[in-house]
Amino acid sequence: MGWRPVGTTTDRFEESELSNPRIAVVGATGAVGAVFLSIIEERKFPFEEIKLLASSRSAGKRLKVGGQEIEVEETTLEAFRDVDIAFVSATTAVSQALIPAIVEAGAVVIDDSAVYRMDPQVPLVVPEINADDLKEHRGIVAIPNCSTTQMAMALYPLHRANPIKRLVADSYQSVSGAGGAAIAELQEQWRSILDGAPVRAEAFPHQIANNVLPEIGSPRPDGYTSEEWKMVEETRKIMHAPEIAISATCVRVPVSICHSEAVHVEFTEPMSVGEARELLEAFPGVTVVDDLSTHQYPMATLGAGRDEVFVGRIRKDASHVNGLAMWIVSDNLRKGAALNAIQIAEELVKQNLFLSGKPS
Amino acid sequence: MGWRPVGTTTDRFEESELSNPRIAVVGATGAVGAVFLSIIEERKFPFEEIKLLASSRSAGKRLKVGGQEIEVEETTLEAFRDVDIAFVSATTAVSQALIPAIVEAGAVVIDDSAVYRMDPQVPLVVPEINADDLKEHRGIVAIPNCSTTQMAMALYPLHRANPIKRLVADSYQSVSGAGGAAIAELQEQWRSILDGAPVRAEAFPHQIANNVLPEIGSPRPDGYTSEEWKMVEETRKIMHAPEIAISATCVRVPVSICHSEAVHVEFTEPMSVGEARELLEAFPGVTVVDDLSTHQYPMATLGAGRDEVFVGRIRKDASHVNGLAMWIVSDNLRKGAALNAIQIAEELVKQNLFLSGKPS
Repeated sequence: MGWRPVGTTTDRFEESELSNPRIAVVGATGAVGAVFLSIIEERKFPFEEIKLLASSRSAGKRLKVGGQEIEVEETTLEAFRDVDIAFVSATTAVSQALIPAIVEAGAVVIDDSAVYRMDPQVPLVVPEINADDLKEHRGIVAIPNCSTTQMAMALYPLHRANPIKRLVADSYQSVSGAGGAAIAELQEQWRSILDGAPVRAEAFPHQIANNVLPEIGSPRPDGYTSEEWKMVEETRKIMHAPEIAISATCVRVPVSICHSEAVHVEFTEPMSVGEARELLEAFPGVTVVDDLSTHQYPMATLGAGRDEVFVGRIRKDASHVNGLAMWIVSDNLRKGAALNAIQIAEELVKQNLFLSGKPS
Repeated sequence: MGWRPVGTTTDRFEESELSNPRIAVVGATGAVGAVFLSIIEERKFPFEEIKLLASSRSAGKRLKVGGQEIEVEETTLEAFRDVDIAFVSATTAVSQALIPAIVEAGAVVIDDSAVYRMDPQVPLVVPEINADDLKEHRGIVAIPNCSTTQMAMALYPLHRANPIKRLVADSYQSVSGAGGAAIAELQEQWRSILDGAPVRAEAFPHQIANNVLPEIGSPRPDGYTSEEWKMVEETRKIMHAPEIAISATCVRVPVSICHSEAVHVEFTEPMSVGEARELLEAFPGVTVVDDLSTHQYPMATLGAGRDEVFVGRIRKDASHVNGLAMWIVSDNLRKGAALNAIQIAEELVKQNLFLSGKPS
C-alpha cells in the first residue's frame, strides 16, 4: 500500500501550516449526498477543492455547493488523484470495489457502507463517543449504520456512568434509509391509496404506505436481519463494550425521514430517571425532550433536518430493577449518515490524521 | 343489585331449551361497531333481536345487519329492557355511567372500555385463553385492550409450556384504535402533504401522517402511559400470571388498521424456535407466517380484515439464553375488539351464563 502509518510524518505539521483538504463525495446525487452537501455549507467545512462523483447515469448534473455550481463527474479511479478525504455513500458493491484503490491513491476514505465497519483495522466512529479511535486508522474510517449511531449517542453517556449489561431495541425506521427513491415511492403509494388506484411496490418487498415491515437488510441464518445484527455488533464496537447482550427488531415504518427507537436498557446498578436525564443533557449532540403531560417527546417531525439525537420517554423499566426505558429519534440522513461523516472529517483535520502527510 | 349469581338457576336449562339471546350494541356507528355488525353476520351469531344504540347525534341512521336495515336508537336505559347481552364499545365516561344500570336491567355486559378490566369481580377474557373465567362473572365481562389481546394470544401457548419470566414489548399501533375519525384524519393529512397544504391534527396531539407518536392513552406518574400499563396488568390477569415482569412502549404509527408488536420474551427454560412454532401453530386463532428469506412475515396489510393473530420473525433472542423474539400482528378492530367480544358472547351462550336465567 502506498500510504504510511498515520501519526508519524503528519504529526510534525502545526495546524496553522495545514492547507484545507481536497475532498471528493461519492454518491453526491443520492439521498445522503444531498444532505451531505447542505451540511458542508452549514458548517462551513473548509475544503480547498470539492469533487462530486456519482454513477455515469448522474454525470453531467450540476449541484450547488457553497454558492458555486459544480458538475457531477463519473466515479473513476482517476478522479481520486490529489484528493485528501473521500466520502463514500454508495452501494455495498461500489464500496467494496472502490475503496482499497482510493486509499492506494492517497485519500482517507470515510465510508457509509457496512463493508468495513467490523474490520478490526477500521475504526467505526461516532466522534462524540470514540474520536480517539481515529488515530488508529489505516486509510479507512467507517461510519456506523444510522440506527446504531443514534442509539449509541443516547446510551454512551449512561454506559460510561453505569455499564450496560443488556439491551433490547425495537426500531421505527424511515424509508429514506433505503434512498431517495423510497421517499418518492411512499408518497406515490399514498397517492394511489387516496385515488383508489393499485399500489406499486419497488423499493421494498411489500407496500410500505399504510403498513409496517419487520424486515430491513438481508436474512441471517439465526433469524435476525443484517440490520438488526448491525445494531448488536456496531454498538459494541463503538462503545468498546463487547460484553453487552443486545437484541433488536428493525422495522420500516411509513415515514420519510428520521428513525425512532424504543430502547429498554439494563444497567449494572439501578439508575434514576433524574440521573439519566442529567447525563444525557450534558452530552454533546443529545437533546432531551421529555414531558409526556404536555405531549413533548421526540418525533420524526421534530427531528427531521435537525442535527441532534433526541431522547425522551425516559422512565424506569418496569421489567427490571436496574432498567430504564427510553425513546430515541434522530435524522437518519444527518447524524445517522452525512453529519457523522463530516464530523469525522473535522476530527481528521483537527487531529491531522491524513495519509502521506497531506494536506500540508 | 337485581341479578343473581351466575351458574345457579341457569344451569338447569339444557342447551336445546334455550332461545337465542336478545342483544344490544352500544356504539354501533363507531369504528368497532361497524366491524362488529359485519362479524355478527359472518359468524351467523344467533340472536332473537338486535338493537343498535349510539349517541343522540347518530340516532335515526339505518344500518344493515343480516340483510335487514335497522334504525339506530339513542342509548337510553329504557333500551336495555329485555336485552340479554349488551356489547358496549363507547367512551370511558359512557361505560362508567351506563354499565351498572344495564346489568341492573338484567343484561350481561361485554365491555370494550378500560373501566372494569382490572376489577377483581370482572373477568377479563380472551376465550382461547381463559374462557373458564366467564363462569365467575357477575354481569360484566371485560374484553382486553387490543394491543394486549393479540400479544396474549401469541404468548399464552408458549407460557403454558414454559412459564414466561420477563417480557419487553414495543408496539406499532394503527390509528383506528382511536376511532373512525382518526382513519379519515390520517388520509386527510397525507392528502395535505401531497398537495403541499398545511396539515391539521385533531385526533392526536401531533400530526400522525409521516410521523410516529410514542404516546397512546394518558400519562402516569411513573412515566408510562395508561396504554402501556394495560399491556402490563391485563396480560398478567388474562394469563393468571401476576409474576411476569413486563415493560412496554406503545407507539402510534401512520397505519389505518392492524397493530404490530415487537416482543422479546424470557422464559424459565430455553425454548427452541421449532418448539415455539409448533406450539403457536397448534393454538386456535394463531397463524404463523415466518419465512424471512421469501419476505413472509405478519404485516398490517396481511392482517387487516382477518380474524387470526399472525406471528412471525420467531428467533432466539440474542440478549438472553432463555429468550425468544417475535413479531405479532392482528386486526385491532377484530380480534382486538369486535371479534373477541362476539367470541365471549358465543361462550356465554354455550356455557349458558346469562343473568336471571335468561334466555330460556
